[in-house]
Amino acid sequence: MKRQLSQKYNVPTIFTIFGATGDLNKRKLLPALFDLYQKGFLPERIKIVGIGRRLFSDKEYRFFVKEALENKKHKHSEKELEDFLEHIVYHEGDFTKPESYKKLSKKLISIEDDFGQCSNKLFYLAVAPVNYHTIFRQLADSGLTIPCSFETGWTRILVEKPFGEDIKTAHELDKILGLLFKEEQIFRIDHYLGKETLQDILMFRFSNLIFEPVWNNKYIEKVEILLHEELGIEGRGVFYDKIGALRDVGQNHMLQMLSFVAMDNPGTLDGVAIRKERAKLLSSVESISKKEIKKNIIRGQYLGYRKEVGVNENSKTETYFKIKTFVNNKRWKGVPFYLEGGKGLKTKRTEINIHFKKTDKCLCPPELEQNHANILTFKIQPDEGISIVFWTKKLGLTMELEPKKLSFSYLTEKTKFASAYEHILLDAIKGDQTLFTSTQEVSAAWEFITPILDNWKDLDLVEYKKGEEGFNIKI
Amino acid sequence: MKRQLSQKYNVPTIFTIFGATGDLNKRKLLPALFDLYQKGFLPERIKIVGIGRRLFSDKEYRFFVKEALENKKHKHSEKELEDFLEHIVYHEGDFTKPESYKKLSKKLISIEDDFGQCSNKLFYLAVAPVNYHTIFRQLADSGLTIPCSFETGWTRILVEKPFGEDIKTAHELDKILGLLFKEEQIFRIDHYLGKETLQDILMFRFSNLIFEPVWNNKYIEKVEILLHEELGIEGRGVFYDKIGALRDVGQNHMLQMLSFVAMDNPGTLDGVAIRKERAKLLSSVESISKKEIKKNIIRGQYLGYRKEVGVNENSKTETYFKIKTFVNNKRWKGVPFYLEGGKGLKTKRTEINIHFKKTDKCLCPPELEQNHANILTFKIQPDEGISIVFWTKKLGLTMELEPKKLSFSYLTEKTKFASAYEHILLDAIKGDQTLFTSTQEVSAAWEFITPILDNWKDLDLVEYKKGEEGFNIKI
Repeated sequence: MKRQLSQKYNVPTIFTIFGATGDLNKRKLLPALFDLYQKGFLPERIKIVGIGRRLFSDKEYRFFVKEALENKKHKHSEKELEDFLEHIVYHEGDFTKPESYKKLSKKLISIEDDFGQCSNKLFYLAVAPVNYHTIFRQLADSGLTIPCSFETGWTRILVEKPFGEDIKTAHELDKILGLLFKEEQIFRIDHYLGKETLQDILMFRFSNLIFEPVWNNKYIEKVEILLHEELGIEGRGVFYDKIGALRDVGQNHMLQMLSFVAMDNPGTLDGVAIRKERAKLLSSVESISKKEIKKNIIRGQYLGYRKEVGVNENSKTETYFKIKTFVNNKRWKGVPFYLEGGKGLKTKRTEINIHFKKTDKCLCPPELEQNHANILTFKIQPDEGISIVFWTKKLGLTMELEPKKLSFSYLTEKTKFASAYEHILLDAIKGDQTLFTSTQEVSAAWEFITPILDNWKDLDLVEYKKGEEGFNIKI
Repeated sequence: MKRQLSQKYNVPTIFTIFGATGDLNKRKLLPALFDLYQKGFLPERIKIVGIGRRLFSDKEYRFFVKEALENKKHKHSEKELEDFLEHIVYHEGDFTKPESYKKLSKKLISIEDDFGQCSNKLFYLAVAPVNYHTIFRQLADSGLTIPCSFETGWTRILVEKPFGEDIKTAHELDKILGLLFKEEQIFRIDHYLGKETLQDILMFRFSNLIFEPVWNNKYIEKVEILLHEELGIEGRGVFYDKIGALRDVGQNHMLQMLSFVAMDNPGTLDGVAIRKERAKLLSSVESISKKEIKKNIIRGQYLGYRKEVGVNENSKTETYFKIKTFVNNKRWKGVPFYLEGGKGLKTKRTEINIHFKKTDKCLCPPELEQNHANILTFKIQPDEGISIVFWTKKLGLTMELEPKKLSFSYLTEKTKFASAYEHILLDAIKGDQTLFTSTQEVSAAWEFITPILDNWKDLDLVEYKKGEEGFNIKI
C-alpha cells in the first residue's frame, strides 16, 4: 500500500463513532474508511473506536465490521481486510450517561499511550439528531474535546444533517455548539457536498474562461435545481411525516447546490474563502412572503402517501415541492431559480440546469428563432458529470440546426471513483472545511426555509400519482 | 425517389460541363450529381451535357460515366444508375474554336425544344485555369449565356480555383468576367466552402449564446488555422512548382476559413449578407510588409522535393508556410492569427483552433495556473466536427484539474453525409452564392497574398524532413 496522505496529515488519530452498530456507520462510514485505508489515505497510526450499547468484545465488533465490508464494491484481499480490522476497537456505552464518557476518556488515553504521543481526535455523531444536544454537552463536560497539547492534537466533531428543524432549533443547537467548540472544530456533514460534480462546479466555472463572462442575468434565462427521487418513503413514515420534502432535501442539499452554482469567485480553493462566499450567496436568496407563496410555490403529496406505515391518515406533509425564487444581487437580478424536489417522481435524478438565453441574431431557420438555447447541466445523481447542449448545423444539404449534447461522465472511470463519504472523511482528517456547511450557511438556509414552512400550511396540496415527471403548473 | 427540391427550383435545367472526360468531372462532379439525383435534389427535367474533344457518342459517354460511378461510395441500384444516365448527353467540341459554341448552342436549343420551355443553364469550367479566358469570351460571344426570356431561364457560370495567380491576373480575369456576366451569375468554387463544418461555423457561432460574448480579443489568445497534408506533391510537380503552397491552399481555403471564424454576424443566412461580411473581414487582414516578413513568416520545403518529377532542381517553391498576421478591427485587435499549411507533414488535418485565454482567478492547483485554457476546434479534414477542451476536476480525492475534450463528429452519421460538391452544385442550381467566393473576396485575398509572394523571395527556405509536425520556430 502506497501512502497517499502527505506527511503533514500523517499524525496519530483516533476516530470515534457514536452509533457503532447503526445503519449509517455500516453502510457508509465503515466502507468509506476501509476504502481510504486501502488507498493509503488514512494516517499510519489510527484507531477507529465504535461506541454502542450492545455488549460486544473488540473481536465481536470486528466480526460485525467484517460482515459489513464483505459486500463492498471495491475489491480487497482477506489480508487487507484483516489489517484494517486491527485498527478497530469497540466501546460499550450509553451516550446519555456521564460515566460512559469517563470510560471513553480512559480508553482514548490508553490508545494515546500505545501511540506514545498526543493524538488527533474525531468524534462522529452517527446517531439521530435528537441526541446531538446530549452528546455535545457530555463530550464537552468530560473534557474529551480538549486537545492534549497546544501544538498537536486537535479535536473535531462531525454531525449529520438535519441540523435543526427550523431557524429556532438550529440556533439553539448552534448556541450550544458555539459555547463548546470553535467553528474550525465543527464539521457539519451534507454528503452531497462530497459528490464529485458538486466539487467540480467551482473548478469548472472558474478555470474555464468561456463561462464566467456569461454567468449572469444578461445571458442566463433561468436556473433549475432538481432533486427527483423515484422511490417513495420506503417505510420511513414516522421520520418523514414530521419532516417533509423541503426539510429533508431542500434546506440542505438543494440550497448547497444553489450556492455553488450561483456564488462569486472565492479567488482561492481555500475552505474559509469558499464557505464565506457560499454563505454570502445563501443570505442573498430572496425570502418568499406569505403573499407570494401561492404564486411561487407548488406543494404536492403522492397518492397513497397517507396509507404508508407511520404516516398520519390526514397528513399534510409534502412529498414534493417546487419553489421559484431569486437571488438578490447584481449578477442574478431577475433570473428565476427553480428548486424542485420530491419523492415518487418519474426518474431518480439530481441535477442543475443552467438555461442560457437564446441569441439575439441567430443564424437559424425561422422555426428555430424561438428555440435554440444552450443548456449546461451538472449531473449529480445517479450519474455524475457535465453536459452541454449546443446547436449545430444538421448534417446534410439543408441549412437546419439541431441540438447536440456534448458530455462527459465521471462514472466511466469507475475504478478511480471515490464515494462522497470518502471525500468527507478525508477532508475532516485534513481539517479542510470546504465540503462542510458553516454556521453562517446553516443559518442563512433556515432563514430562507423557515418562513416558507410557517406560511405554506394554507397552500393546497396537489396530489400526484407516483411516477410523475414533475408538475406543469407554471410558477 | 422522393423529390426534395422545392417546387421553386424544380425548373428545367441544362448543366453543361467543359472537361467532360477530365479527372475533376469523373471523380467529383459526376458522383455528386448522381448523389443529388438519388436524393431527389435535381430538377425533374435536367440534361447534363459533357463537352470534350474525344469522339464519343452519347452511348459511349454514358458508358464512360457509368464506369466512373460504379465505384461510388453510396449504394445504388442498376435501375437508378440507368435512369440517371438517361439525363446525360455528350457534345464533341474543341473549346478554343468558335464553331464548337455554335454547335453547342444548337444542341442546347434542341434540348429546350424537348423540354418545351426556356431552361436554366449552368456552365461548369472543369478545365485548366489557363483556358478560362477563352471560354468566358467564347461563351459570351456565342450568345449562349443570354437568358432565353426575361422571366425564366437564368444562366450561371461555375469556375474552379485558382482564380488568378496574383492580384494582377485575378483582376484581369475579373475584368473580363465583369464585362460578360453579372456578379449573381458568377459562381467561383472553393470546395472547402462546401464542407459541413465550415458551413457550421456561422451557425455554431451565432446560434449558441455562450460564444459570441467571448469571441474577441478580450478572451481569445490566438487563432490557428491549419491545413496540413501528409502527402507530397504526388507527381504534380509541373503544376505545383509554379504555384507553391501559399497559392495552392493559403490564398483560397485558408483565408476562407479565417473569414468564417473571424467575421461579424451577417444577421441573416442570406448569401449576399454573408459574402459581404466575409469580404469585409478579408480586407481587414493586415498585410505583411517587406520588413516584417522575416519576423512573421516561415517558409519551408521538404527534403527531396527538388528531385520530384517536373520540379526545377534549384526550385525555391515553398511546400510549407506559416504566417502570423492580425485582423485590423475592434474585435480582433492584438490577437495573432496563424496560418500554417503545407505538404509532407506528419498528419493530414485541416482545422481551426480557437485558443482562449486562461482565467484571471483560476480555482486551480498552482501548477495549472499557467495552463488551463479552453480550446475550441473546428475540424474540417479528415473528420468533420467540433471539439472543445474544458478543464474539470480530476476524479478522486485530490483537488486537481484535468482537460476533457467534448466533441462530436459529423462522420458518425455517414449515411446522411453529403460531399462538398453536392452542397456546391445544389446551391448553384438554387442560385445561393453563400458557398462561393465573391469578386470582392477574391480581390481582398490577393491583396493580402500578393505582397507576401513579392517580398518573401529573399526569405531563407527552411528544409524539413517529410513527416514533420510543423515548425517550432516561434513567430
